[in-house]
Amino acid sequence: MSAEQSSQPAWKALVAEKRARQQASIPSDWFSLIEPHIPSADTLDVSGIPDQCTELLSEREREITNTLDVQVLLAKLASGTWSSVEVTTAFYKRAIIAQNLTNCLTEIFVEQALARAAEVDEYLKKTGKPMGPLHGLPVSLKDQICIKGLETTMGYVSWIGKYAERDAALVEILYKCGAVPFVRTNVPQTLMWPETFNNVFGRTVNPHNRLLTCGGSSGGEGALVAMRGSPLGVGSDIGGSIRIPSAMCGVYGLRPSYNRIPYEGAVNSLLGQDSVPSVLGPLANSISGLKAFTQAVVSAEPWRLDPLCVRKKWDEDAYRLSEHGGGERMCFAVMWDDGVVKPHPPVIRGLEMVKKALEAKGHKVIDWVPWKHSEMIENLSAIWAAGAAEDYAVTTQPTGEPILASMTDDAMTSEAPFRPSHTDTISAYQLWQLHLKKQKLRKEYLDRWEATVEQTGTGRPVDAIIAPVSPWLAPPHGKNTNCGFTMVWNLLDYAALVIPVSKLDEKVDVKQPPHKFLSKEDENVYNLYEPATFKNAPIAVQVVGRTLEEEGVIGMAELVDAALKDVAR
Amino acid sequence: MSAEQSSQPAWKALVAEKRARQQASIPSDWFSLIEPHIPSADTLDVSGIPDQCTELLSEREREITNTLDVQVLLAKLASGTWSSVEVTTAFYKRAIIAQNLTNCLTEIFVEQALARAAEVDEYLKKTGKPMGPLHGLPVSLKDQICIKGLETTMGYVSWIGKYAERDAALVEILYKCGAVPFVRTNVPQTLMWPETFNNVFGRTVNPHNRLLTCGGSSGGEGALVAMRGSPLGVGSDIGGSIRIPSAMCGVYGLRPSYNRIPYEGAVNSLLGQDSVPSVLGPLANSISGLKAFTQAVVSAEPWRLDPLCVRKKWDEDAYRLSEHGGGERMCFAVMWDDGVVKPHPPVIRGLEMVKKALEAKGHKVIDWVPWKHSEMIENLSAIWAAGAAEDYAVTTQPTGEPILASMTDDAMTSEAPFRPSHTDTISAYQLWQLHLKKQKLRKEYLDRWEATVEQTGTGRPVDAIIAPVSPWLAPPHGKNTNCGFTMVWNLLDYAALVIPVSKLDEKVDVKQPPHKFLSKEDENVYNLYEPATFKNAPIAVQVVGRTLEEEGVIGMAELVDAALKDVAR
Repeated sequence: MSAEQSSQPAWKALVAEKRARQQASIPSDWFSLIEPHIPSADTLDVSGIPDQCTELLSEREREITNTLDVQVLLAKLASGTWSSVEVTTAFYKRAIIAQNLTNCLTEIFVEQALARAAEVDEYLKKTGKPMGPLHGLPVSLKDQICIKGLETTMGYVSWIGKYAERDAALVEILYKCGAVPFVRTNVPQTLMWPETFNNVFGRTVNPHNRLLTCGGSSGGEGALVAMRGSPLGVGSDIGGSIRIPSAMCGVYGLRPSYNRIPYEGAVNSLLGQDSVPSVLGPLANSISGLKAFTQAVVSAEPWRLDPLCVRKKWDEDAYRLSEHGGGERMCFAVMWDDGVVKPHPPVIRGLEMVKKALEAKGHKVIDWVPWKHSEMIENLSAIWAAGAAEDYAVTTQPTGEPILASMTDDAMTSEAPFRPSHTDTISAYQLWQLHLKKQKLRKEYLDRWEATVEQTGTGRPVDAIIAPVSPWLAPPHGKNTNCGFTMVWNLLDYAALVIPVSKLDEKVDVKQPPHKFLSKEDENVYNLYEPATFKNAPIAVQVVGRTLEEEGVIGMAELVDAALKDVAR
Repeated sequence: MSAEQSSQPAWKALVAEKRARQQASIPSDWFSLIEPHIPSADTLDVSGIPDQCTELLSEREREITNTLDVQVLLAKLASGTWSSVEVTTAFYKRAIIAQNLTNCLTEIFVEQALARAAEVDEYLKKTGKPMGPLHGLPVSLKDQICIKGLETTMGYVSWIGKYAERDAALVEILYKCGAVPFVRTNVPQTLMWPETFNNVFGRTVNPHNRLLTCGGSSGGEGALVAMRGSPLGVGSDIGGSIRIPSAMCGVYGLRPSYNRIPYEGAVNSLLGQDSVPSVLGPLANSISGLKAFTQAVVSAEPWRLDPLCVRKKWDEDAYRLSEHGGGERMCFAVMWDDGVVKPHPPVIRGLEMVKKALEAKGHKVIDWVPWKHSEMIENLSAIWAAGAAEDYAVTTQPTGEPILASMTDDAMTSEAPFRPSHTDTISAYQLWQLHLKKQKLRKEYLDRWEATVEQTGTGRPVDAIIAPVSPWLAPPHGKNTNCGFTMVWNLLDYAALVIPVSKLDEKVDVKQPPHKFLSKEDENVYNLYEPATFKNAPIAVQVVGRTLEEEGVIGMAELVDAALKDVAR
């Protein structure tokens, strides 16, 4: 403690040294070409700036990085039309631009990535065949997915200098599939915040409005992918950590079910908390990216590397919606609120847009009646809290770095007491009782879903739920305090995919008169809304399917996305 | 406590009342026909007695109950050659004989079962089609699998009078499949013992030698199926509870992976202990019975009833060994000991028999090198102990029934202190650390299995492990203190199937001179062996496959079983 109380705590010196190394890892000629384009702090929307960096990004590199459909990228890579070295270089440059505008990166390793890309190119040249289904594709990874020889700090000062001795199982598989891991991305301390701010790398901001959060905990991925600085990112989700940044940054993101994608060898806080496990999953600018990733990883038989991985092959029939009437005349259900909080007007408008688009395609859309969401949120919070305080303390103790008490800018100086929701440590027996409660809630929810067969007219229960991702669009830093709309699907272990729908329209999304508030929380949420606050923020929805139904959810999301695009056309 | 301290504790009166009701549930005309055949206590092997009860069991009923191949039974039921009422009546009579010889039953409900059988017969008559894949088949259930309207005591005095308000998910599915649940079977108190003895129903004994345990905790099922009093039983397994009684009673038993078979709505002790979950699985006198059950239940999409159930269809290709060279020229590995304990001579002989039979069929058989089994056993014990003491106390408190301290005959009178291995309660954070340790062990074991690809000559890692089920055959009551050979596969979540191989041969299975003991435990195990003690006890092995590889394990076990039968021919 004595070091901390001095004017410059020892941990800050570690941070300074790490950040200097990070800056040094950026090719200086790239940086000097970017610098003139870095706007003043009052420029909120920086998403268009990369395309202005014409000195750094050639026309071809802009063409490459603006190719949003990952299947198109993969086809050009597999045919050798674009080499992996040029694609990786293009995205790397753009990632560095994104870094200078949003602070989204942690580990930068240009040489290593380009050497890998050259190896992949060489393979194609020699054999005439792509190395695998992700041949040549640069892939960004959240700063918890270990790559042999690289540091994994995960935003913990105490982990500076912790170099991975081996690749995470997912990285092994990505290599096997021909991919090129090329950057790692920023996170909040502990990963247990829905924003992105830590003692080592500081804050990542939203590319569409830098006064707003990019969400979290996979916020570095959200910002990077939205900047088109990566064609495919991998995040993790324990309560919304893929979906929240996807929605807030306006990209696509998939939260797969537990253990479909191998987690083995990735680090995290709360490791050993197996009640509601964190899962890895993709973010991209197209659903084709989410599909390419999921299909490639599952087809690589990840259960041979990760003992927890479900032995379940990629199911092409399920992707083609064999369990959903082949995609014809389906029945969706829209969840307008969760019984705890009513979302802000633009969120509701996003849901309405989806409803109309689906109806225009001949699908039926009914209302989803939420069931015990507040109990589920409470249960999951208690599970996290069961051992979190001890876990965080053990990790931060070596350097004495402060445990953040909020995601506001003064979080590091306030040294506020540890947030109350995570201090309720309990016994193993008490944890078992939480599991029983959780199981009961999961059974009730399942039964209610199955019972919708009476209302759908399809002979099946509702095919998917369309739900908000958050009660709001990306809020100002430190204000993203409600994760109820994502947490429940983690507890229920439902596969969920985020689709960007639109952006805030200040003229349309006006503040409504107060409604009869569902809760005190609802009133607080209501009070936060002023359209001007959320200027330029993306609007998104979740498509929610069943446990271990990744294929079906991807298939249904493609259908929803296409319906939305047809309406917009 | 005052009631307990009187000469007749109050809980004993509850037991007396329950047992009187149990006795009254047996049709008195059946009992009077059985009574003359009940031998004196010094008759050890009672397995042949049912076939002597010719006054109760007609020739046709003996033919029905001696049909060991469940597929044959199912075919005759589906064609109407045998009606469900006659098949159910036949097995019911034989189950009551078994009850009088081994004390294997708990709930007896003849009228209800026969009414159900009549309903199934009626369905076939009306529609010309069987009701489902288990049409008309009587199925026995361990006394934890709730049937609406019936008591579930699970051997707890405190649960006498606890009537189920609904069917367990598995029972719902069995009904849908056309099956006829017809008896429930005995268990040890808490289900956390590998023998079968509780305060309510007392002890179940081994049909082959009543001085020996039938194993546990699904010991009632083991004894009943061995007596051919049920064609198909359902037990549960958290550390060997299906496999131990299967092996000790000489029947087939499958321990599926976590959540392949729906557990929802079954009761247990330690509920909420999700680290190494208990699983339900079948016992039968043929592998065809295990297959029929598993295929029928999985094909019924149990994930629509149980939110924890894995969404994974029955994989016929995997059953046909598509991942194991189509069953040709495979490579098995025999685990001769677990590095902790060397099994008794007849157990080793069983392994040798399997090795020879497989080699005779052209398969390769190598040695399995066990890896950290003692650490796995310790880890799993600590997980159970994490909250067990509190769990048992909460359950038994209402009546003050004693918590058993051993499975010996004086367990109920000794009121010995609670067994030490289950009192180490810990915090949730400490439990998370056990999970981390477990995960590491699972990863190491998986890597070692995968690495065997270097030795097999098949291009694949070892196809399956052939392992002992226990270090001994069924030991005398109270002596079954080692479950290491089954527990490890629960921790690793490997699917495992027990195959009966032979029986003790006192002349062949002689005591060996002492070896260099692997541990103190090994010395104790060695000292227990005298051939005469294990007179007539069955010998069995486990066929161990991968996590969620039920289909493949059934397919491989059929191949092992056929090889053994060909050698015996």
